[in-house]
Amino acid sequence: MKTILPLFLALAGAVSVPAKLVTQTVEYKQGDATLEGYLAYDDSVAGPRPGVLVVHQWLGLTDYEKHRAEQLAGLGYVAFCADIYGKGIRPKDTSEAGVQATKYKSDRALLRLRVNAGLDELKNNALVDKTRVAAIGYCFGGTTVIELARSGADLQGIVSFHGGLDSPTPADGKNIKCKVLICHGADDPFEKPADLAAFEDEMRQAHVDWVLIKFGGAVHSFTQPLAGNDNSKGAAYNEPADRRSWAAMKMFFAGIFQ
Amino acid sequence: MKTILPLFLALAGAVSVPAKLVTQTVEYKQGDATLEGYLAYDDSVAGPRPGVLVVHQWLGLTDYEKHRAEQLAGLGYVAFCADIYGKGIRPKDTSEAGVQATKYKSDRALLRLRVNAGLDELKNNALVDKTRVAAIGYCFGGTTVIELARSGADLQGIVSFHGGLDSPTPADGKNIKCKVLICHGADDPFEKPADLAAFEDEMRQAHVDWVLIKFGGAVHSFTQPLAGNDNSKGAAYNEPADRRSWAAMKMFFAGIFQ
Repeated sequence: MKTILPLFLALAGAVSVPAKLVTQTVEYKQGDATLEGYLAYDDSVAGPRPGVLVVHQWLGLTDYEKHRAEQLAGLGYVAFCADIYGKGIRPKDTSEAGVQATKYKSDRALLRLRVNAGLDELKNNALVDKTRVAAIGYCFGGTTVIELARSGADLQGIVSFHGGLDSPTPADGKNIKCKVLICHGADDPFEKPADLAAFEDEMRQAHVDWVLIKFGGAVHSFTQPLAGNDNSKGAAYNEPADRRSWAAMKMFFAGIFQ
Repeated sequence: MKTILPLFLALAGAVSVPAKLVTQTVEYKQGDATLEGYLAYDDSVAGPRPGVLVVHQWLGLTDYEKHRAEQLAGLGYVAFCADIYGKGIRPKDTSEAGVQATKYKSDRALLRLRVNAGLDELKNNALVDKTRVAAIGYCFGGTTVIELARSGADLQGIVSFHGGLDSPTPADGKNIKCKVLICHGADDPFEKPADLAAFEDEMRQAHVDWVLIKFGGAVHSFTQPLAGNDNSKGAAYNEPADRRSWAAMKMFFAGIFQ
């Protein structure tokens, strides 16, 4: 055995190449607006691979989303953080964030244009297998990826993490072509039972392939460590829900990226 | 490489032993009642391993549950199908099944005794690591494993597949010591929104570690191929929900059996 083992290890080493994370700020356009996204991929992976769009929270594109993109790159995907608000528009506080988020949540047509521009940018990357593309989003970004699906975009799946589920045009559910995974905090005070019921009805009426996971004990922002740990504030980090929802996303990807 | 490859294959072969499924009908007691369960494990697995109790649907212990136990054995667990109704009590049709299921659903104290007897039988098996035990159940069995948790039983987790969630004594949620995973058909007509809301409140009030997954397009019995495929009957097989709920169970086990 002593003579075999090093040989075995050498062979095992030969089939895996050390990860080489590449990240890049990327300017792109939607109409006349200049947007500034963030690309991450593992340069040691050969050939086209699935692509994942990441859509930011109401504070805009921050280190949080960039870190998620890097985690996705570590899983072997090409990840691209969309910029919905536009280059240089990075809210400094929740007040500015509210203004920006409300602008897009009250103009779903514009929101759809912005997120589709990000999707196009991702799909135009030569490293991406265009037949295996998904989008994930957090809070405002969760709402946004659901809107992406409602726009009829051509992709395989979307995952919303504590995103708002409401829709001013529930009939648009019929446009959804992709699979849908919703990760929801069971104690999220910003999502009323009526919103959940309306969302489920939208999916049901449109015969969407959907799954909704309720994480007990989790409120809004449960994947965001910066949200603190006080559930009474309505938004707080929840480690089990973060870990389990990420695992659920990976399982979902394994299904849609076969 | 030609000389190395056979060596590599021989080495790879040396670390895995062919599975050897052992199954066995097991008589055990609850009070004066004789029960007849079904044990399944892989004899090629060495040493104590996690144990999983499987609780049957309203038709009693059938080949369906035995097959699930064999699948669990294939995953490396010791699986034991409990017999809630008693030896020889195997409903021939839904009418007889209704009588039996109603007997136990209307006497939760007796139901808890019966399922705990099954859990004890599993834990007394020398192959089982008593610190890593779970219970799963289908329909009536889903309700039963939730009652097992509500009884304060000492185990790591329960998984209900399309089980009834109602409780005549919601305060008993406070007895729950284990983690809870509920796999639910989003279109299950036998589970009303009020039942779901009451269950969630029970978990919430008792600070249970719980997750509930709603599978879109799935009605009651979604894991049961014999249920056919006509959703309008209220019970039907749903292949994606079956596959995904089984995968969710495996992920749940990976978490609780660390």
